[in-house]
Amino acid sequence: MTFDKEHIIEELKQYIRQKNISGIRKTLDGLHPADIAEILDELDFDDALFIIRLLDSEITADIIAELDDDLQEKILKRLSAKEIAEEIEELETDEAADIIAELPDRKKEEVISHIDDKEHAKDIVELLRYDEDTAGGLMGKEFIKVNENWNVLRSVAEMRKQAEDVERVHTIYVVDDDDILKGRLSLKKLLTTSTKTPIKEVYNDNIISVKVTDPAEEVARVMQKYNLFVVPVVDELGTLVGQITLDDIVDFIKEEADKDYQMAAGLSDEVEHDDSIMQVLKARLPWLIVALLGGFASVIVLSGFGNAMNKYGTLFFFTPLIAATAGNVGVQSSAIVVQGLANGTLSGSLWKRLIKEITISLINGLVLSMILLLIGKFLLGHILTGFDLKMAITVAISLVAVILMASLIGTFVPLFLHKKGIDPAVATGPFITTSNDIFGIYIFFTIAKLILGF
Amino acid sequence: MTFDKEHIIEELKQYIRQKNISGIRKTLDGLHPADIAEILDELDFDDALFIIRLLDSEITADIIAELDDDLQEKILKRLSAKEIAEEIEELETDEAADIIAELPDRKKEEVISHIDDKEHAKDIVELLRYDEDTAGGLMGKEFIKVNENWNVLRSVAEMRKQAEDVERVHTIYVVDDDDILKGRLSLKKLLTTSTKTPIKEVYNDNIISVKVTDPAEEVARVMQKYNLFVVPVVDELGTLVGQITLDDIVDFIKEEADKDYQMAAGLSDEVEHDDSIMQVLKARLPWLIVALLGGFASVIVLSGFGNAMNKYGTLFFFTPLIAATAGNVGVQSSAIVVQGLANGTLSGSLWKRLIKEITISLINGLVLSMILLLIGKFLLGHILTGFDLKMAITVAISLVAVILMASLIGTFVPLFLHKKGIDPAVATGPFITTSNDIFGIYIFFTIAKLILGF
Repeated sequence: MTFDKEHIIEELKQYIRQKNISGIRKTLDGLHPADIAEILDELDFDDALFIIRLLDSEITADIIAELDDDLQEKILKRLSAKEIAEEIEELETDEAADIIAELPDRKKEEVISHIDDKEHAKDIVELLRYDEDTAGGLMGKEFIKVNENWNVLRSVAEMRKQAEDVERVHTIYVVDDDDILKGRLSLKKLLTTSTKTPIKEVYNDNIISVKVTDPAEEVARVMQKYNLFVVPVVDELGTLVGQITLDDIVDFIKEEADKDYQMAAGLSDEVEHDDSIMQVLKARLPWLIVALLGGFASVIVLSGFGNAMNKYGTLFFFTPLIAATAGNVGVQSSAIVVQGLANGTLSGSLWKRLIKEITISLINGLVLSMILLLIGKFLLGHILTGFDLKMAITVAISLVAVILMASLIGTFVPLFLHKKGIDPAVATGPFITTSNDIFGIYIFFTIAKLILGF
Repeated sequence: MTFDKEHIIEELKQYIRQKNISGIRKTLDGLHPADIAEILDELDFDDALFIIRLLDSEITADIIAELDDDLQEKILKRLSAKEIAEEIEELETDEAADIIAELPDRKKEEVISHIDDKEHAKDIVELLRYDEDTAGGLMGKEFIKVNENWNVLRSVAEMRKQAEDVERVHTIYVVDDDDILKGRLSLKKLLTTSTKTPIKEVYNDNIISVKVTDPAEEVARVMQKYNLFVVPVVDELGTLVGQITLDDIVDFIKEEADKDYQMAAGLSDEVEHDDSIMQVLKARLPWLIVALLGGFASVIVLSGFGNAMNKYGTLFFFTPLIAATAGNVGVQSSAIVVQGLANGTLSGSLWKRLIKEITISLINGLVLSMILLLIGKFLLGHILTGFDLKMAITVAISLVAVILMASLIGTFVPLFLHKKGIDPAVATGPFITTSNDIFGIYIFFTIAKLILGF
C-alpha cells in the first residue's frame, strides 16, 4: 500500500505557485490524513500552513494530529485559539488533549473557552489533569457503557445514542448506578437475548482494567500480556473513567524502545535524521562533554603510573584494549538489566544474580585471557619489544579482573538507579563506558605494578 | 491489574507434592492463560508438564501459545503428535502455524495429519509456506467476508456462519466472485440498510491492504501510520488471503526494537535475564572476542609509534580519551542512521547528509577542543610533565580530525550495510567502537608525528 508521494508533491507545488485552489483540493481529495501529513512535512512551512487553512477542519484536525511534532508545534503557534478550537472539536478527546497540552498556558485556556461542545471541553479538561505517561494521560473519554439495571431494549437504545460520538466500538462496558465498572457485554449476547432481560443477568464480570494512575509501562505490559485491543480505565473507587486502545500503546512502546536505544547510543534527546543541526547538537554534545571529562580522568590516572614508561612502556600500548573491553562488558551487562526492567522479566534474588554475573564474567575473562596468551606467544612476542611471559600474564590477569569489575558495575548501577526512581537506561552507553574506562585502566596498572613492580 | 502469583505458586507446589489434582484444578480455575503461562515458567519442568497434561486442551492451547519460547519448545518435545494436534485444534491459524513451525519436519507432518478439522489443517499448511517475517507469516485465516453480489439478508446469514470460527470480528471484507478484495462494510450500514439491497451498493471501497509477500516492517509501518487495528492481506492477484491484527504487530515491533538495542549493546542473540549461563555466554562472548582482536590491532598501531615514548610519553596518556571519543561519536552517528532506517524517516540526498554530518562533527570537535585547551592550560599543564601548548594543540587538532572520521564511519557504514541487504544495526556497538578506536589512535599519532616530529 503506497501512494505516489513524489508525484503528488510536485503537482501540489505547481498548484501552489499558480494559486490554483481547486487544483490543490482535487490533488488532496481522498488522500488519508496521515498521507497528507507526510506531504506537508516536505513542503515549505508557509505552503503547509496555507493548505491547513484551505481544507475543512473535519480533515485538517486529523492531519494536525498526525503531523511530526516539530511541524505541529510551528503550525499551532500560527493558528488562532479559535482556529485551534475548531480542529479540536473534530478530534477524539485523547488526541485533543495531547494537542492542547503542547500549547502555552494562556492559549490553552483560550482554546478551551472556544470549544462549542461543552461536554467535549469538560472531558478534555479532565484529561489534561493527568500526567501524560500514565493511564489517565493515554485514555480517551469515548466509550460505550450500559447500566446493569437496564434491560436489553433500553441498553440498545442508549448505545445507539452514545455510538454517535464513538468512532469505533470495541467493548460495551457494564456499570452500576455509581458508575462503578462491573464487567462487559458481548454484542452477540445482546443480539440474541430477549429485549426484557436485565443486563445484570447476561453480562460477563471477567474484565481486566487498569487504574488511572498506573504508569504507561504497566498499561503496555497488561495489554501485551493479555492480548487486549482495548482496556478500561478506573479511578481509585473503581469508577469507569476512560478507555485505552492498543494503537495509543503501540506509539508508547515504540517511543520507549527508541528512547532506551538512544540513551545507550549516547543521545540525550530524541533525535531524528531530519532534525536541525542545533537539535542534533543538543542531543549529542552533552554526552560527548561528559565523556571527555571522563577522558581527562583517565589521563590523570595514567599519568600517575607514568614512571612505568621507562621499563614497561609496552603496557601503555594495551590501555585501549583494556578500556574497550571494560566498556563493552559494562554495556552488555547494563543492557541486559535495562531490558529486563523494561520488560518486567527481572526476577529472582539479588544474590543469585550476583553469583550468575560473577560466573559469566569469570568464564568470559578466562576465554579472553586464553586468546590473549596465545596471540601474545605466537604473534605479539615477535612484534612488541619487552612483551615477555610475565607481561602477558599481567595483561591476562588484569583482563579477568577488569571484566569482573565492569560486569558488576554494569549490572548494579542500573539496578541502583532504578531503585532510586531514575531511568536505568541512563547508565548504558557513554556513562558506563567512560566510568569503566577509568576503573579499568586503574585496575590494569595497579595489577601491573604489583606483578612487575615499578 | 495484578494477581497474587507468589501465593498461587506456593499453593500449587503444595498440591503437586500432595498429588491433590482437584486442588490444582481449583487453584488455576478462572485464571487467564497468560497468567498460568507465567506461573508454569517458574515451576520445575516436570511439574509444568504435569499441569499441561492435566488441564483441558481448550485452556492449555492458549497457555502453550503464551509460554516463554524455551519452555514451549521443551514442552512440545515431550508431547506426542496427537497431543499437540489436540492443542492446535483450539488455536487460531496464525498461532497454530507459529507453534507447528517450531517442530522438527517429521513431527510437523505427523501433527498436521492428526488434526481432525481438515479445513483448519489446510489453512495452517498454507500459512507454513510463508516466511515468518512477512505479512503471510503474520496473518491469520480467520476473518469475515461477504460477496459483493449478495444482498444484505444473505450477507448477515453467511456472516453468522463464519463468525463461529472467528474470535473477534474487526472488519467485514467485501470480495467479488473471484475472491478479489473490493472493500469493507460497516456494521452500522449493514444494520440500517434494507435487507434486499445488494452489498455492491453499500460497501466502502476505500480500504488499505498489504501484500502477502510484504516484509513485516512494512506491515508495521502501514498499521502504525494509518492507526489500523487490523489490515487485510492480498496475494499478487488481489485475492483476499488473510488478516493481520495489531496485537501480532505489537510483538513484532517490540522484538525488532529490542534486537536493535541488543546489537548496539554488543549482544549477538536475544538474551533475557533468566536465561541459562550458556545462553548468555553465547550472546556475549562472540562480540567480546571480536573487540579483543580489534584491541590487538590498536596495540600494534600504538607499538608502531613506540619511538615517541622517550620524548613525548605524555601522548600515550591520551589514547583512551581519543579512543573513547571516537567510539562515542561513531555510536551516536550510527544510531541516528539505524533508527532513521528502521522508522523509514531517512530521506534527502546523500550529499546533503554528508554536509550536515561534517558540519555537526566540526562544531562538536571545536567545542570539545576548546574544553580540552582550557582544561589543558589551567589543570593538566600543572599535573602532566611535558604537556605544553604545542602538545595541547596537537591533541585538540587530533580530536577534531578523529570526531570527523568517527562520524563519517558511523554514518556511512550502516548506510552501506543497509544497501547490501545486511542489518545496519550490526554496525552499532562494539563493531563501530572497535574500528573507530583503531582508526582514531592511528590518526592521533600520525598528526602528533607531523606536528611534534618523532
